[in-house]
Amino acid sequence: MEKKNIVILGGGFAGLICAKHLSAEQFEVTLVDRWNHHLFQPLLYQVATAGLSAPEIAQPLRSILSDHKNVTTIMDQVVSVDLEKRTIELKAHHLSYDYLIIALGAKTGFFGNNHWEQFTLGLKSLDDAMRIRREVLLAFERAEASPDAKEVKRQMTLVVVGGGPTGVEMAGALAELSGVVLKGDFRHIDPTLTEVHLIEAGPRLLPTFEENLSAYTQTRLESLGVTVRLQSPVSEVGEGYVIAGGQRLESQVIIWAAGVEASPVTRTLADIPLDRGGRIQVLPDLSLPGHPEVFAAGDIVSLTDKNGVRVPGVSPAAIQMGQHIVKILNGGLKEGERPAYAYFDKGSMATIGRKAAVASIANRTVKGFPAWLLWLFVHLVFLIGMRNRISVFLHWVWSYFTWQRGARIIFGQPSDEKR
Amino acid sequence: MEKKNIVILGGGFAGLICAKHLSAEQFEVTLVDRWNHHLFQPLLYQVATAGLSAPEIAQPLRSILSDHKNVTTIMDQVVSVDLEKRTIELKAHHLSYDYLIIALGAKTGFFGNNHWEQFTLGLKSLDDAMRIRREVLLAFERAEASPDAKEVKRQMTLVVVGGGPTGVEMAGALAELSGVVLKGDFRHIDPTLTEVHLIEAGPRLLPTFEENLSAYTQTRLESLGVTVRLQSPVSEVGEGYVIAGGQRLESQVIIWAAGVEASPVTRTLADIPLDRGGRIQVLPDLSLPGHPEVFAAGDIVSLTDKNGVRVPGVSPAAIQMGQHIVKILNGGLKEGERPAYAYFDKGSMATIGRKAAVASIANRTVKGFPAWLLWLFVHLVFLIGMRNRISVFLHWVWSYFTWQRGARIIFGQPSDEKR
Repeated sequence: MEKKNIVILGGGFAGLICAKHLSAEQFEVTLVDRWNHHLFQPLLYQVATAGLSAPEIAQPLRSILSDHKNVTTIMDQVVSVDLEKRTIELKAHHLSYDYLIIALGAKTGFFGNNHWEQFTLGLKSLDDAMRIRREVLLAFERAEASPDAKEVKRQMTLVVVGGGPTGVEMAGALAELSGVVLKGDFRHIDPTLTEVHLIEAGPRLLPTFEENLSAYTQTRLESLGVTVRLQSPVSEVGEGYVIAGGQRLESQVIIWAAGVEASPVTRTLADIPLDRGGRIQVLPDLSLPGHPEVFAAGDIVSLTDKNGVRVPGVSPAAIQMGQHIVKILNGGLKEGERPAYAYFDKGSMATIGRKAAVASIANRTVKGFPAWLLWLFVHLVFLIGMRNRISVFLHWVWSYFTWQRGARIIFGQPSDEKR
Repeated sequence: MEKKNIVILGGGFAGLICAKHLSAEQFEVTLVDRWNHHLFQPLLYQVATAGLSAPEIAQPLRSILSDHKNVTTIMDQVVSVDLEKRTIELKAHHLSYDYLIIALGAKTGFFGNNHWEQFTLGLKSLDDAMRIRREVLLAFERAEASPDAKEVKRQMTLVVVGGGPTGVEMAGALAELSGVVLKGDFRHIDPTLTEVHLIEAGPRLLPTFEENLSAYTQTRLESLGVTVRLQSPVSEVGEGYVIAGGQRLESQVIIWAAGVEASPVTRTLADIPLDRGGRIQVLPDLSLPGHPEVFAAGDIVSLTDKNGVRVPGVSPAAIQMGQHIVKILNGGLKEGERPAYAYFDKGSMATIGRKAAVASIANRTVKGFPAWLLWLFVHLVFLIGMRNRISVFLHWVWSYFTWQRGARIIFGQPSDEKR
């Protein structure tokens, strides 16, 4: 029997699980990603805030899949998918497939205000994280160098938009960076006077968590010096300012953690229903309507599962969807035989600075130091690569005791090319 | 007594030693660097070849000098120095001084052929190293993706120009990257077929070392698969090719480790004698002719010391010169009282791949594995920051046993923006 040819678009959590577990006897697999690495996105905010170096949270796809001789990795960008001809246009390649798995993930979304992108800093790739790191560290350099008190205040105002886990973790890490790590390193400014604003449109932080955890998170962040602004939807963003809840904040560093939307490739899928964020509305088995040979998984999917649960855009869901598709394909299950995917909620967690976290697991809530230890443990276990695990663990231990950040290094662009 | 005001240009080995040891009672010190970090240049080639991450060999200047409250650090670029008015023009600042220490180091030099710069990759900053890493890793990606055998060969040809320590270390690390680390990770190409060419104009590698070490280095490199081309001065470099010793090599990755010249700021020093590479011809006490209040130290200096020894552009010399200037300034020594600087040769060393090195110390030569252990030890000891030492040591141990490289991550620019 000739092997069937499966193309996987995207080497994130969903795509990688498929590449690793699809049967080598049955399938020739081609994995396409625009980067050469799998990225552990949950720790991206630590690269952005100079705690970890970029290679510590990334692993080359080729090296992860080195022993999977049925998997070919291509580093290229997806342009479009032709579902009728079963072909894919990449920037430099043209592929055809018997089966297709679309796992391209999400990008930063602006609720239709795409012109805000140029004034804000998203956090989806290593490049995004390095840009935030550079801009934050340069803001302090610019403040130190400025003789103008108003300009100093503007440079020392950092804004995070979005009160979900990413926004909370960013705000906490920025508050500690300015309030503790940089303290004493400047001669003209006092980094502890930095204002970190966390802006949320809704009535509480971490809206998907239990209410008592939201309240605890807010209190903890405020004790770190973060100004939490609830009920403050953003109405305008421009060069150096943001208007939220009617109030204008002057800042050069506006980090956008408020929303995501699907990869624009979904717009090239003829006759496939998408939600407002461009996500693919898959059938219960994760295949595309009218195309049992095409699946989607991860953040690119819009689905309410068979139990009526809206599947969230988190890594456990992406991994589960990948596993579900592997089961269907390895089992050779035809349309009628395929089970529906059901999201299994493993719980969720978010850190708040160096010593506290909130976690919600199987209807129980944990907070404070125990939740933080749990967070550390879970994130180390899921980080790919033993070297990365050891290295990140040692950096965390080091930072915990010394209050230093290991990656406070500006590179990527010389200072004079910056605004 | 009012404190005198000392400006130090450059936070490399020479400048940093001065900033740390100039008397806090006597001097207010301003340290200027275009980057926010001190860079441990001897390990830069390991960042370029994906062995170490950038923050592991860099340390923020502000954090190194945090406890030196008499030192102000400015991140800015030097434009010019006015020796008569005793002022310095930076891009965004204007400084004046009582004493000045010029320690701006060197940049990649092309012996008057500055147009070669656009076709080659230098190795002086973290950005340079990241660019080499990206280009080398992308060359393999492009080879894997190309259906054209000639193009594959071109992408899999890596050229290093310059047979000094940097060139030798780069060539060895590239040979091991392609011959061992990447082996098995591709499906269409065989990375072990990569050609690494090391080009040297003179008759032997490592011309400043003993001859038997040169011969040993060449044999070791050849056993790693490097093609060593001696007596091959470069006559032409263009887009995708280099002509050396009359022979043309087609390559997209041409790493230039053949020469350095002084920072262009030296050209703004009125009436100060410079050598052909733009280096400052200092007086024996390291001050500038006619300006006892101005010193130069490190790679920016051109000097034959009082023992008739030409001072080489290496980090021990930079550190010694910094210490010499500190002694003069802290001691308040006037022109007639100042001792002449004498270079103390601590020896020199270079690694050749993962297990061998050559070292020349106090008229004795060491080679092979013992020299490699010595190299490891010396470089760990001189690396600034305990965290960096631990982290680099663990990465080396890890790489030694697994043959993996921890930083095989492409970022900085998406693949489609590359040639």
